[in-house]
Amino acid sequence: MNNLTKSSEKIIIAGPCALESRQQLQQSVKTLAPMGVSMIRASLWKPRTQPGWEGLGWMSLPLLLEETLPFGVVPATEILTAEHALMVVHALEQYGQDAKMIVWLGSRNQNHLEQRKISKILATGPEGITFMFKNQMWDCERHWLGICEHILSEGFPRERLMICHRGFSPGKVPNPKGLRNLPDYEMAMKIKEKTGLPMILDPSHIGGTRENVMDICMNSLAYDFDGYLIEAHCDPHKAKTDANQQLTPNLLQDLLQHVRGPSYKSVSA
Amino acid sequence: MNNLTKSSEKIIIAGPCALESRQQLQQSVKTLAPMGVSMIRASLWKPRTQPGWEGLGWMSLPLLLEETLPFGVVPATEILTAEHALMVVHALEQYGQDAKMIVWLGSRNQNHLEQRKISKILATGPEGITFMFKNQMWDCERHWLGICEHILSEGFPRERLMICHRGFSPGKVPNPKGLRNLPDYEMAMKIKEKTGLPMILDPSHIGGTRENVMDICMNSLAYDFDGYLIEAHCDPHKAKTDANQQLTPNLLQDLLQHVRGPSYKSVSA
Amino acid sequence: MNNLTKSSEKIIIAGPCALESRQQLQQSVKTLAPMGVSMIRASLWKPRTQPGWEGLGWMSLPLLLEETLPFGVVPATEILTAEHALMVVHALEQYGQDAKMIVWLGSRNQNHLEQRKISKILATGPEGITFMFKNQMWDCERHWLGICEHILSEGFPRERLMICHRGFSPGKVPNPKGLRNLPDYEMAMKIKEKTGLPMILDPSHIGGTRENVMDICMNSLAYDFDGYLIEAHCDPHKAKTDANQQLTPNLLQDLLQHVRGPSYKSVSA
Amino acid sequence: MNNLTKSSEKIIIAGPCALESRQQLQQSVKTLAPMGVSMIRASLWKPRTQPGWEGLGWMSLPLLLEETLPFGVVPATEILTAEHALMVVHALEQYGQDAKMIVWLGSRNQNHLEQRKISKILATGPEGITFMFKNQMWDCERHWLGICEHILSEGFPRERLMICHRGFSPGKVPNPKGLRNLPDYEMAMKIKEKTGLPMILDPSHIGGTRENVMDICMNSLAYDFDGYLIEAHCDPHKAKTDANQQLTPNLLQDLLQHVRGPSYKSVSA
Repeated sequence: MNNLTKSSEKIIIAGPCALESRQQLQQSVKTLAPMGVSMIRASLWKPRTQPGWEGLGWMSLPLLLEETLPFGVVPATEILTAEHALMVVHALEQYGQDAKMIVWLGSRNQNHLEQRKISKILATGPEGITFMFKNQMWDCERHWLGICEHILSEGFPRERLMICHRGFSPGKVPNPKGLRNLPDYEMAMKIKEKTGLPMILDPSHIGGTRENVMDICMNSLAYDFDGYLIEAHCDPHKAKTDANQQLTPNLLQDLLQHVRGPSYKSVSA
Repeated sequence: MNNLTKSSEKIIIAGPCALESRQQLQQSVKTLAPMGVSMIRASLWKPRTQPGWEGLGWMSLPLLLEETLPFGVVPATEILTAEHALMVVHALEQYGQDAKMIVWLGSRNQNHLEQRKISKILATGPEGITFMFKNQMWDCERHWLGICEHILSEGFPRERLMICHRGFSPGKVPNPKGLRNLPDYEMAMKIKEKTGLPMILDPSHIGGTRENVMDICMNSLAYDFDGYLIEAHCDPHKAKTDANQQLTPNLLQDLLQHVRGPSYKSVSA
Repeated sequence: MNNLTKSSEKIIIAGPCALESRQQLQQSVKTLAPMGVSMIRASLWKPRTQPGWEGLGWMSLPLLLEETLPFGVVPATEILTAEHALMVVHALEQYGQDAKMIVWLGSRNQNHLEQRKISKILATGPEGITFMFKNQMWDCERHWLGICEHILSEGFPRERLMICHRGFSPGKVPNPKGLRNLPDYEMAMKIKEKTGLPMILDPSHIGGTRENVMDICMNSLAYDFDGYLIEAHCDPHKAKTDANQQLTPNLLQDLLQHVRGPSYKSVSA
Repeated sequence: MNNLTKSSEKIIIAGPCALESRQQLQQSVKTLAPMGVSMIRASLWKPRTQPGWEGLGWMSLPLLLEETLPFGVVPATEILTAEHALMVVHALEQYGQDAKMIVWLGSRNQNHLEQRKISKILATGPEGITFMFKNQMWDCERHWLGICEHILSEGFPRERLMICHRGFSPGKVPNPKGLRNLPDYEMAMKIKEKTGLPMILDPSHIGGTRENVMDICMNSLAYDFDGYLIEAHCDPHKAKTDANQQLTPNLLQDLLQHVRGPSYKSVSA
């Protein structure tokens, strides 16, 4: 049983693609927490196809924790390297062994030595750390399963491990709706079954546009995803990254009503 | 003008997928050098889809240099991390600033921070180091160009940089001949033109079987590749990795006669 | 000519032994800057004889810069490792190539490989970085000179390098006044001459008590030190480290009147 | 009970200061093993007061193991950094969990963060690793004890930990016999008692000359040292480091007869 799936409710991790400023994070928490979003993404480190803005990085890791943990909100960020993992562990330790955080390994991070170093470091960190790995960029079931094997081989505990499907790079595969990445729901369900781990869906990187993101979420309801990782920004047009696919708070509100299972009880209720 | 393309001859890098033993390397040099193969691959570090044999690693880096450089042969290996780059630089320095070596970045190594760290380290190493980067696993021209930008942004000199096309993961794209990876010769030529860098073909990872490797090489002659990176093993059936796609010395000999341009003068002539 | 000794005035670096909180630093800047102290020490990382409080560390590096640079004050901290050097360089870069900072290598950090790694990293950082190395813990002129050679061998520029004498561990040498460490003013002057670098005195680690610190400063006036590194705390009794030797602002004020040369012009004048 | 002190015999670690070549090590093993020396030092990494020859380094770590372990001899080397510790662990693992090795932390390596990183890495390595720490360069009981606390705080097991007294830097302390470093036998015995760990004596760095080394050993017999770390070279005049203090095999033979307790049974008997 995974730490985050003890209840029958869907896991919802939502928030801006990247952390941009203290004010942006404060506004995100203020807006999303009342919707019952208790896990807020705001990535510190951004993988880059070309040289460009790389996120606020380690210098804002204290900020990320300061503006979430004291408010009962769990922060979530991608990490790219073993150094990032060491910093996350060290910073979270200041908040005690019960402090919670979600960190994930991105789709381009397919160097198994780095994957293993990261896993080993996180395995020794506070038990409140949940580790999530996304599928790799290319369509291959065996490789995706392999990431899981590498992570487990370093002793990272299953109870704190999750998977996320963010679609595969389309390449030359037909793509009539112009999705940014192509989902393979069946493969995701097969991986979920084989690994016994919770499977989250990232509709944002699949959709690429707000309209597509909404559609993808609707389509996904036919499958048993354990939760969703959704990009949402209080002012998407000003977002430094992924401006087209970040939902407004209103759109997120709509979407949550659909993806939350019938067991969901409103926080305000 | 790149260090390795000063002559009009094709660049030929051939040899076993992985370094397996001193004896195996000695035999490879003894067999391939007389065919005019002056750059011999024998990888020390292997990316792994699942936990398994990872190559002989740094402990055999001294061996790799001892059994090639004194015989006028240039060793070639993949490197996976910044630590590997540091070791290669340090070990090669023992042979002086003129010592030559080829190191490459593999297709799964798409963490731009690691790419940049590696590039920075290699840039400060002996000038005899040629750095080659392969295309990423998934079909995307923009990402492939991006690797080049990341590497150059760290000051790695163009004159010692090469690119290698090793095909893209097939995923759900039709693949009637069962190739291990799908080539995109047009994209490779476009990248060659845009970057101004030599473009090498790796028919071994595209073909996946000896027969396919031979075919791919024949097909590639219609394009202006600057050279070839070919897996060849004196006893392929005993190879620890990629046993099906490593050529025998005889097959390699045949293939070289085809891919070498008319300007090639036999070493024995 | 060193960046910090262009004027004929003594270099004064004063402030708390360790950074303890944002408020403590704000108060230090507010109190010391009006005394003409434009370089304020507040160490992030503390070498420890036994396991204990290690300083606020990298998580407070952003704070150290935020509360000094915008107020025209140059922050100063000890660094212990190459990782610390990388962070300092990265953090300072956010403030531009003109941003100034002083970092020093402590007396127990006598692993020449680490010294060289740190020097190499700092050499590539913003030109506003001044690097200072203290003498080692034990009394040995040759070793002290050797630190300088190791640093310069990595290309760190002389114009940004300073030395600091903090006394030698007394061991079994007679020590009637109970100094924490024994000064060797003659050796310091010899090293100053041989290296051609500015020589700073750290009376705090020599004295060990406020009274001794004042005496040491008076004694030192007979020698040509280029400046002073002095521990001063707005509330020394509450200091987390070195409580006995940190001066009150009033004592520092007195001391500065003595050590500042006749060429000093009061900032308020 | 420490792994190396199960018998009542003195622990003898002898051999060249630094590993210089395969031939030198082969000759050392051939000469010393028949004297009953089953632990042979031959350091790979040398701390340097000034830039100079730094030892053969990681490239010869495979050699060090190849020429000792298969002959039933335990290799011993100083390590300077966490990278060295990682390499030692990785290399020794190739010889199985029973393979034995002695590594030590030198007297200048007093950065507690590096000490802790090294300890943590070694703690996870093969159980055959014995870790030894020397006293720091300067005369201070509290600091020496602190090293032990730092090491144990990272979970390094007591059963595989030893201490070595190599004397303190003389500085301005009277030194009529011109010893290279001054011993404090009483302090060594106190530290032995307080920590409960075996205490080895390094007469070579105390003596500085062959004559002094012999004298120091004789003097030490009045104290309960658990063993000796002695520099011995088959051709001391050609040694690359510490030429004056390395014993010839004949002198070592003499010395061993004195320091070995009455319980020692000759291997040839």
